[in-house]
Amino acid sequence: MAVTAPPKLLFRQLFEKESSTYTYLLADIAHPDKPALLIDPVDKTVDRDLGLIKNLGLKLVFALNTHCHADHITATGILKKKVPTVKSVISRSSLAKADILIDGGDKIRIGNLFLEARPTPGHTTGCTTYVTDDAPHHPNPRMAFTGDTVLIGGCGRTDFQGGSSEKLYRSAHSQIFTLPKQTLLYPAHDYRGFTVTTVEQEALYNPRLTQDEEAFINTMKKLKLPYPKMIDIAVPANLVCGIQDSKI
Amino acid sequence: MAVTAPPKLLFRQLFEKESSTYTYLLADIAHPDKPALLIDPVDKTVDRDLGLIKNLGLKLVFALNTHCHADHITATGILKKKVPTVKSVISRSSLAKADILIDGGDKIRIGNLFLEARPTPGHTTGCTTYVTDDAPHHPNPRMAFTGDTVLIGGCGRTDFQGGSSEKLYRSAHSQIFTLPKQTLLYPAHDYRGFTVTTVEQEALYNPRLTQDEEAFINTMKKLKLPYPKMIDIAVPANLVCGIQDSKI
Repeated sequence: MAVTAPPKLLFRQLFEKESSTYTYLLADIAHPDKPALLIDPVDKTVDRDLGLIKNLGLKLVFALNTHCHADHITATGILKKKVPTVKSVISRSSLAKADILIDGGDKIRIGNLFLEARPTPGHTTGCTTYVTDDAPHHPNPRMAFTGDTVLIGGCGRTDFQGGSSEKLYRSAHSQIFTLPKQTLLYPAHDYRGFTVTTVEQEALYNPRLTQDEEAFINTMKKLKLPYPKMIDIAVPANLVCGIQDSKI
Repeated sequence: MAVTAPPKLLFRQLFEKESSTYTYLLADIAHPDKPALLIDPVDKTVDRDLGLIKNLGLKLVFALNTHCHADHITATGILKKKVPTVKSVISRSSLAKADILIDGGDKIRIGNLFLEARPTPGHTTGCTTYVTDDAPHHPNPRMAFTGDTVLIGGCGRTDFQGGSSEKLYRSAHSQIFTLPKQTLLYPAHDYRGFTVTTVEQEALYNPRLTQDEEAFINTMKKLKLPYPKMIDIAVPANLVCGIQDSKI
């Protein structure tokens, strides 16, 4: 009888300074193939990320996006050109193209590890939070990659791409804050030098999301944020994996 | 008989963009006081760090420096003014002032956790790497805070403040690369968006430190780096905990 080694997570958080974006590398290094995935890779840092993956002896299998970004161009298209076996992944509700369109509850598997997709609309229609499992041998505390839904002491804006403050509030409270309180939350961005937070920290101290729903909606209405400088380039590109002439 | 709870590490990595400096927050949250320490705090981010410490319910006990920095001003002096019970810590060989001057092998204790000081001269005379313990209930894999001795895919420059390429090479190989290969290495800086590495990764792929000693010394000689723009302000300030008129 074949014995399956319990998963062993290799994890790296990576930062792209210009858009203050975090990319995440996860791999099951107990599996003989060392299969890996990237979450929210950025076009400008693709060579850095592939160099690291090569050095670590990993096999990149999936390139996931938490949503169709408006502030940078995803590296999924370039990654697929450079590593043709890589499959791009995004939620079906994002309306973006990808090799694999996921729905809530779907699992992305690398070796004996997986991430489960939780729909967390609000910043955009298709926002998804990817969550590790709670079974033995899986990361403890659990980890959730929240995209722009819950940021550290903040949240994504809700004024474009099908944004809805009501939906974001409900997504955060029903899909993220219901995770165990020690769950590590890794956002798509941070602008102040924070790298990670927890469910407990955000549920207690997030200045926006600790308000009641009505006050939160009012706060978001009053933000009057400038038009995002990259949106007209990034969104059309990201709808097709970051490459306008890509066949996905 | 009193039962001592095993330590439980709370860990946060924090980034200061201007000098690309990492500050680290560690606390023993199994201890009733939740005692905490900061490694390499930066003056410009002291309010951010104290806000986080307050939100997490921690008691800041120590502010450590890995060395007398030339590229930013340490926050130890400001921290001592804002939280008078905080003790500053640096190596005796740095020749800087601090409440606690440590030598190789000394331990900095917070609750039931501790960091051991390993002298790793080379970038400066007083450079120290702080390493977690390998006993049960301590972080596994171990963690080492390497300052500017080993950077991710690099190392600190060796052309000022008593710098010595020979010493840096020997420090890295005898004090850092001898740790278990999965030990997580957290540097004082990264300029490319990496956040962490391992002994294994650096021992195999660090382009400078995988050379033999002679080749390494030649590489460092040829760097011809510009004069550090902050050095004339930062070093005198950091010799007195970051505040020129400080009585430590």
